[in-house]
Order: sequence, then structure tokens, then C-alpha cells
Amino acid sequence: MPLPDDAQLISVDDHVIEHPRVWLDRVPARFGDAIPHIERLPDGNDWWIYEGQKAGNFALNAVAGKPREQFGVEPRTYDDMRPGCHDIADRIRDMDIDGVWAQTCFPNMAGFAGRVFEAARDKDLARACVKAYNDWILDEWCAYAPDRQIPVALLPYWDTEAAVREIYRVAEKGARTYTFLELPHLRGFPSYHTDHWDPLFAATQETDLTVSVHFGSSGKSDMIPPEGGLLGNTVNEITVMGLNSGFAMAQLLTSPLFHKFPRLRFALSEGGIGWLPYLLERIDYVWERHRWYNNINREIPPSALFADHIFGCFISDRAGIVNRHLIGVDNIMFESDYPHSDSNWPHSRKQLAEALADVPDDEARKIAELNARRVFNFPRTSAAR
Amino acid sequence: MPLPDDAQLISVDDHVIEHPRVWLDRVPARFGDAIPHIERLPDGNDWWIYEGQKAGNFALNAVAGKPREQFGVEPRTYDDMRPGCHDIADRIRDMDIDGVWAQTCFPNMAGFAGRVFEAARDKDLARACVKAYNDWILDEWCAYAPDRQIPVALLPYWDTEAAVREIYRVAEKGARTYTFLELPHLRGFPSYHTDHWDPLFAATQETDLTVSVHFGSSGKSDMIPPEGGLLGNTVNEITVMGLNSGFAMAQLLTSPLFHKFPRLRFALSEGGIGWLPYLLERIDYVWERHRWYNNINREIPPSALFADHIFGCFISDRAGIVNRHLIGVDNIMFESDYPHSDSNWPHSRKQLAEALADVPDDEARKIAELNARRVFNFPRTSAAR
Repeated sequence: MPLPDDAQLISVDDHVIEHPRVWLDRVPARFGDAIPHIERLPDGNDWWIYEGQKAGNFALNAVAGKPREQFGVEPRTYDDMRPGCHDIADRIRDMDIDGVWAQTCFPNMAGFAGRVFEAARDKDLARACVKAYNDWILDEWCAYAPDRQIPVALLPYWDTEAAVREIYRVAEKGARTYTFLELPHLRGFPSYHTDHWDPLFAATQETDLTVSVHFGSSGKSDMIPPEGGLLGNTVNEITVMGLNSGFAMAQLLTSPLFHKFPRLRFALSEGGIGWLPYLLERIDYVWERHRWYNNINREIPPSALFADHIFGCFISDRAGIVNRHLIGVDNIMFESDYPHSDSNWPHSRKQLAEALADVPDDEARKIAELNARRVFNFPRTSAAR
Repeated sequence: MPLPDDAQLISVDDHVIEHPRVWLDRVPARFGDAIPHIERLPDGNDWWIYEGQKAGNFALNAVAGKPREQFGVEPRTYDDMRPGCHDIADRIRDMDIDGVWAQTCFPNMAGFAGRVFEAARDKDLARACVKAYNDWILDEWCAYAPDRQIPVALLPYWDTEAAVREIYRVAEKGARTYTFLELPHLRGFPSYHTDHWDPLFAATQETDLTVSVHFGSSGKSDMIPPEGGLLGNTVNEITVMGLNSGFAMAQLLTSPLFHKFPRLRFALSEGGIGWLPYLLERIDYVWERHRWYNNINREIPPSALFADHIFGCFISDRAGIVNRHLIGVDNIMFESDYPHSDSNWPHSRKQLAEALADVPDDEARKIAELNARRVFNFPRTSAAR
């Protein structure tokens, strides 16, 4: 049974390329040249310049529609990418071509969870940049097609009080989720095992937002050797990024977090799902043996927390689909990853339908649409029916 | 169909606790008090003392037969562990109780791959300690029951020339494998992507030894936060250790290694198998997209190298057994992990038989026995038939 035609495909991991005026139009002018802006440098490339320094380009992050043989070196200017990368009207057209009805978009220049702003010198400017991004993504990008875009906010997470204020502000404006560090300790912050994030997650639970932790959002770990990274062998590095989500999940499920916040939801963005059955089984095996001398809940097996709290997604993952009942069909979502290199644009819906050929209709509907609508509190509108 | 009674169960991941005289009896006396030896300190515990410093104890590494409620704090002396931890005659009796016919044993005091010696100040002494360990494991431990023990050697891997000499020496004495760093770059050595290890792997291929890379052999990565480690929440840390084997596998399969050494074999010791279908699928997905601009073989998909070169093992892994055909039944082995905390001693064979209840006999025989005999070049002897 292929994907039913009336299922509206929702992708829970896509990306925007911020257009050149996102911050120029919204950050107070007193910050002057320090405001993130685009300059075409003598190397012929468009670069983000922030606080006087290069803050990234687009290579590999805006390749939708390109032949794979060109991956890696292109694009380096706005002229060399599909307008759908940064223009919402074009994005909706590209989604229509791809068979994707709605999506969540993560930032590019800012880093998956905003670590470019975390690392900045001027924290007043950084907070203003986060606010500007949120106003842009909510008021311009998502407002253009509110039934087609699930709003993803950024947080000034390095300042817990400011992050809590921003959670209430963006929730009021319609955000459904925010992007957060998958492994905060990799950026020098306390881990999920600590109480450090309690005010932030209390606000998250109160506003009913979902926490989206995108693989790679905490930056590089030491698991990738220099020769296996972007300058030598990206296949090594990109292959294992989904395992980062496994480390995040194990930390979440062994921490006190879901005991403290019983309605909190985490989406493992771009993490894949095929490794989930292994890790869910393994975590209980270890808990059974080692709970007695550890600072961990001794009554509830960690895997029992998964169903209510953690949601995975996939692009192409035969092992995960075959084993969907070992994961829980309610905890699996789809992602198209437009315009990144993992994307199958313009064939996302076609390829998903093929991948779900042996999956019953009711399960396919959940995976393609219904789970994302529930997890992100994003019901069908009457206009969309 | 349960495991056939005539299948001889072979475990490819078990451990020795070195007895107190392993090094005292074999390292030249001129090294004096620097030689590793046991002292019972005022805290009441037996400690390894090496080069005048504490070099470890046994907690969690010799718990076979203990109630789980006691895990973590015990044992701290030789008196408080089963003699089978360090005495080969008792070990064979414990294997008989457990239904395990043969096994590979990894060191304890030395670290899984010998990094205690790598980190030592006196490298002459360190090389002598490696040689002493190998003489002990080959001439005393394995020689006692040559059809019941598959000899695992140590290498002075920090000195490639010395390591090559030791490979030829131990191969001549009957070793079938050596224990090596799963992720050498985590210890500051060049990765598998480089040519650094070529002399070592050339000797390995020539002697037909298998490389055993035990999870955790390279030490801690930065993926575990302080509060999720041994001092706070071991469940977090132990749960994800199998993912280390995934990072090692991805590095091996994307490196030039198996193109340079087409007969080289790696065993992913204690790594689990349930994540393999995901990673094998993922590595080709990434390679299809990213091979063109990377320093990687562009003709042969990485997963195609797996069958001939990489072998996994499991204790309890329902996802892996269900998906065994996505892995390859020839590439799956069993491990009992005696006397560590993961072990199901004295029920290893019983639990494996239950886990393989739905697996056809011919596949069960491969998983329980035949694959290990082939991978480690350890045929049945006439006495053992």
C-alpha cells in the first residue's frame, strides 16, 4: 500500500538560508557594521560578516537540485542556489514540486541551534539577533503560509533568563518548537543530568513547545579524526552524525528530566531511526544491572519514557521502517532536509511512498503526517483540508 | 529451534583479571619496584602499583556471580571475586557451568588495548610488560586449555616497529588476534585514514591475525558529560559504548584500509549488532552523495567492504537478531563478557538459546560457533569433537 494520496506529507527537518536583510532590517541600527550582513568578497563568494568577521557561507547547505558531482564546492553565492532556499514564495513552490505539504525549518548562518550567537562577543547584539531571527521566521517566513510552515524559534540559551523570556514571547507569536543543543556539555554548558535547564524546560512545558535537537547542533565531538572530517573525508563525518542523536537520547532517558517535566517532548532532528531499537533495548539492559549504585530513577526503565517524550525522523531508513514496531509507530516522523545534501528533492514524496510500500495505510499516515501534527501541535486547518 | 546441543558456544569477548605475579615473574628484575604488582593499601583494597603509582583496581570488572544490587563498589580484592577471574583452571570450570566452550580474553589492568603501558613513562619497561603479558596469556593461560582459549595478544602500538616485531612473535607462538585501539585518534595517534599503521596491518595480514577493537579501548570521548560518567550515572555511559564501535566502523569503511589490505579482518568487540543495519545503509547513502569531492574510493560502496572485513558480536540484542539478514549472518558472533557486569553468567548458553529460538539451526550454528572459528582461525580439534 503506497502512501495514501490524501495524506499531507510533513517534513520535520528542513532548512532556510537566511536572506541578506534578515538582520539588517530588524536589529537596531546602533549596532552598525557588527550586524550580520552579506558581503561579496574578492574570492567571488558571498560571506556572512558578523562582528567584523566571516561567519560562514552556504556550501553543501543549499544544494537542492544540483547534480551530486557538484556537491562540496557549490554554492557560494545567492545567485548559485534555488531561490526556494531563502524566498518563502519559491520555497512553497519547491515544496509543491516535492510533494511536501508542511515543514520545520532550521537556521543556517546562525548554526543549527544558534551557536554562532552564543560564541559572539557582544551578547546584547547576540540577543537582538536571536529576536530578529525569530521575528523574521514568524512574521515573514511562516506568516506567508501558516498552514505550510511549522515555526521553529531560536533561543539565547547561554542566558537562561533571557531564553525563558524568549520562549514565552515566541510561543505567544505562534512558535511550535525551538531548536536547542543536542549535547549541551559539548559547548561547555551543564548536561541534561543537572538542574541548570529547569527554568527553561518548565517554560517549555508550560507553553507546550517541543524541543528540537538537530544532529550537529552542539558542534564537533572528538569522535571524528581530522582526516575524517570536512577537509578530508566528509563521508566518515556525515555517516555518523545520526549516532550523535543516540548519545543525546541516552543522556535524556537516563537523566531526571522527564521525571521532572512529564509533558516535555524532544524531536531528534535528522537523527535517523534505524538505531533506535538497538539503543532502547540496550538502555534497559544496562539500567537493569547498574541502577542500584547510580543517580538514576530505579523504578521506571528508561525505555518506558521514550514513547511519551522522544520522537525520531528519517529520510531513507529501511532498517527503521522494518523495525517500526520495536520503536513505536507513533514516534516516527519524516524529514526531507531541503535544501541540504541529504535531500531527495524533488522526489521526497515519491521516495517515501516507495519506502512505505509494505506499511499499512494507518501506519503510513502517522509516519507521513499525523505524528508530526501531534508532536508539533500543528492541526490541519479547514483551509488545508 | 533452540541452539543445537552439539554446537560449541564460542564467546568472542571475555576478560581476565591478571593475577598478581603476571609481571613479577616475567619482567626483568632490573626494573625493580616499577614492575606492575599488587599492594593491599590501608583502604583495604588491592591496587595495581606500576611505576610507583596506582594503576587500577577491579570494581565492576570482576562481578560474575554477584547480585546486581552489589554492582559498583565490589570487588576490591582478589579474595572478593570468583577465582575464575584470574585462574585458568577455575575459568574453564566457570565456562563449563555457563555452557561456553571457548572464548577470547581481554586484559584488565593493561586497559582493553594496553593503553596503561602506552601512557607509562619508561617505554623499555612498557615493552617488557607487553611481552610479559603475551607470554603469560599464551604460555600459561591459553596453553592450559588450547581448545578452550583463543589467544588475544597485546601490542606496543605506540612504537610501530616494535609492534610489528611483536605481531610476528605472538603469531609464531599461536596468537589468533590482538587487541587494538578502536579509535586511535582519541589517543593522539593518526587515524585509519592515514598510512601510519600500514606496516602494522601489513604484518597482520601476512600472519592472518584478526584485529580486535574493544569498545572503550581508546578511552573516554567527549560525548559523555561528567554527570553521565562513572561518578554520576554509569547507565548513560555504558549504554552508549556500543556506538563507539559504530564510529570505528564508519572510519574503517570510509578509509583506504581494506583497499590496501584486502584480507584484513576487524572484530568489533562488545559493540553490539543492532545498530549495524542502520549504519550500513546510512554509509552508502552518504557515499552516494558525497564521494565526488572526498578522498574516498568512488567505485566500491563502503557497505560492500563489510562482509569480508568486519565482524560484530552481541550478548543480548533482539533488534540485531531480528535483522540478522540485513547484517549478514556470517558476520555475527556471540560474547559472554565474563566476568564483567554485562555478563549473564552462569546462564549465557541458556539465554542465547532463548534468543535464537526463532533462528534456523544453520544460522544459529554460525552465530554461536562457526563464525568465530572462521574469523579467529580456530578450527575444532579432534579432541574437542
